[in-house]
Amino acid sequence: MEVTSAQQLLQEIFAPWVRELNLQVQRCGGGEVELRLPFDRKLTHVAGVICGQVYMAAADTAMVLAISSALGGFRPMTTVALNTSFLRPVSDGDVAITARVLRQGKNLVYGEIELAGPDGKLAAHATTTYALL
Amino acid sequence: MEVTSAQQLLQEIFAPWVRELNLQVQRCGGGEVELRLPFDRKLTHVAGVICGQVYMAAADTAMVLAISSALGGFRPMTTVALNTSFLRPVSDGDVAITARVLRQGKNLVYGEIELAGPDGKLAAHATTTYALL
Amino acid sequence: MEVTSAQQLLQEIFAPWVRELNLQVQRCGGGEVELRLPFDRKLTHVAGVICGQVYMAAADTAMVLAISSALGGFRPMTTVALNTSFLRPVSDGDVAITARVLRQGKNLVYGEIELAGPDGKLAAHATTTYALL
Amino acid sequence: MEVTSAQQLLQEIFAPWVRELNLQVQRCGGGEVELRLPFDRKLTHVAGVICGQVYMAAADTAMVLAISSALGGFRPMTTVALNTSFLRPVSDGDVAITARVLRQGKNLVYGEIELAGPDGKLAAHATTTYALL
Repeated sequence: MEVTSAQQLLQEIFAPWVRELNLQVQRCGGGEVELRLPFDRKLTHVAGVICGQVYMAAADTAMVLAISSALGGFRPMTTVALNTSFLRPVSDGDVAITARVLRQGKNLVYGEIELAGPDGKLAAHATTTYALL
Repeated sequence: MEVTSAQQLLQEIFAPWVRELNLQVQRCGGGEVELRLPFDRKLTHVAGVICGQVYMAAADTAMVLAISSALGGFRPMTTVALNTSFLRPVSDGDVAITARVLRQGKNLVYGEIELAGPDGKLAAHATTTYALL
Repeated sequence: MEVTSAQQLLQEIFAPWVRELNLQVQRCGGGEVELRLPFDRKLTHVAGVICGQVYMAAADTAMVLAISSALGGFRPMTTVALNTSFLRPVSDGDVAITARVLRQGKNLVYGEIELAGPDGKLAAHATTTYALL
Repeated sequence: MEVTSAQQLLQEIFAPWVRELNLQVQRCGGGEVELRLPFDRKLTHVAGVICGQVYMAAADTAMVLAISSALGGFRPMTTVALNTSFLRPVSDGDVAITARVLRQGKNLVYGEIELAGPDGKLAAHATTTYALL
């Protein structure tokens, strides 16, 4: 799965509310994907930093694409669990989201997602389990 | 903190993108809050069910209000971690989100969030740790 | 599954190292189990409180019994994930562990575990996902 | 902090029950530590594989040493939360546990732990938050 088809997948399968994040596929293949989240004021809360809800939504979205790239294409799946830790605030600049599959089983897939601010430092970190349907 | 002031807080402190969820405060007080998420097609993904990203965002939002109600008002805080498990799909009808504080420490607060579909069954379950600033 | 058979199961299926916790089944049935962890100095670390490793091990053990009680008997299963939060130290007295199934699917089971100190307050809280084999 | 002092710390601060795991420090420094868990039948459950409780206990233990190495020595701390996913069974051979600090804040530290079987593949993966006291 290449960048173009991953970007198209992003438009086709996710909820309209999630697509508002305007995530941009930068790199995709072999169970790993990198997305860019363009900074946008509508994603920041009262303290002026990107809100945690955005990181969780971006992490989940990125992992669906990473798993699809590992499987050679999209296949119905469902998130079993997603754990996110919030590490540093981002008050300006884009966020880079890297999702990678760490264990692909027959039914369950496990992976991690790193979200880095414009300084390259971790803003959030997530792990997740998906069930293939 | 009553329902009206909790609803007002919801409008003031959360990101515009989160406010699009249109969460409605039903009950608030003593470290527990109940919100209603009105069903909306823009929150559903390709399979026609409410997407996981919505549950995580609603859970995080509800807990900020629950903690504020325990503290007697809003106070700067930050989500340290939020773990969500996705249990049953919701393809129609509103979701009831109940957040409650389980442990309020001096610096850290721990709580859980139940998200139930219109049949009253758990659609998702989350636990979370916040740091008071 | 009654208390006696749950206690026997505890002796038969868990690792010898886990059995050293000397967990005692207090109540068992309908997807919920309560165990008692007798206080023991060999379970405490340098600060004189029960160490976190004990809570995680007890939580995992309790949930296997809770799921078995929901299924009407033991069946091969594997822990997919277990998330634990540590809330209050216990420096003396027994710990009560209550595990309950929150969602029993065909392949996956989700539940939560409360661990309370002798004062009845939460010492730790865990959530977990199991796969039935 | 070198290997010898980390090994000594392991003997001094952990509970006797945890020390029975017989963890061996292989490498230590700069916020990262590697331990070896010698295979032992008393750590296996009825299916003949190392039980999940062992992985969680080893992960927690390793991270205390990793944080101590980042701080230049042991300092009182407490585990806030530890999330573990179980990925592949290990039925024989030692387990390598690598813990690393991903974010060291003033009060909170976040890190991840990889547990690999003798084939070098991930057997379990954990993330954790500690509070410095």
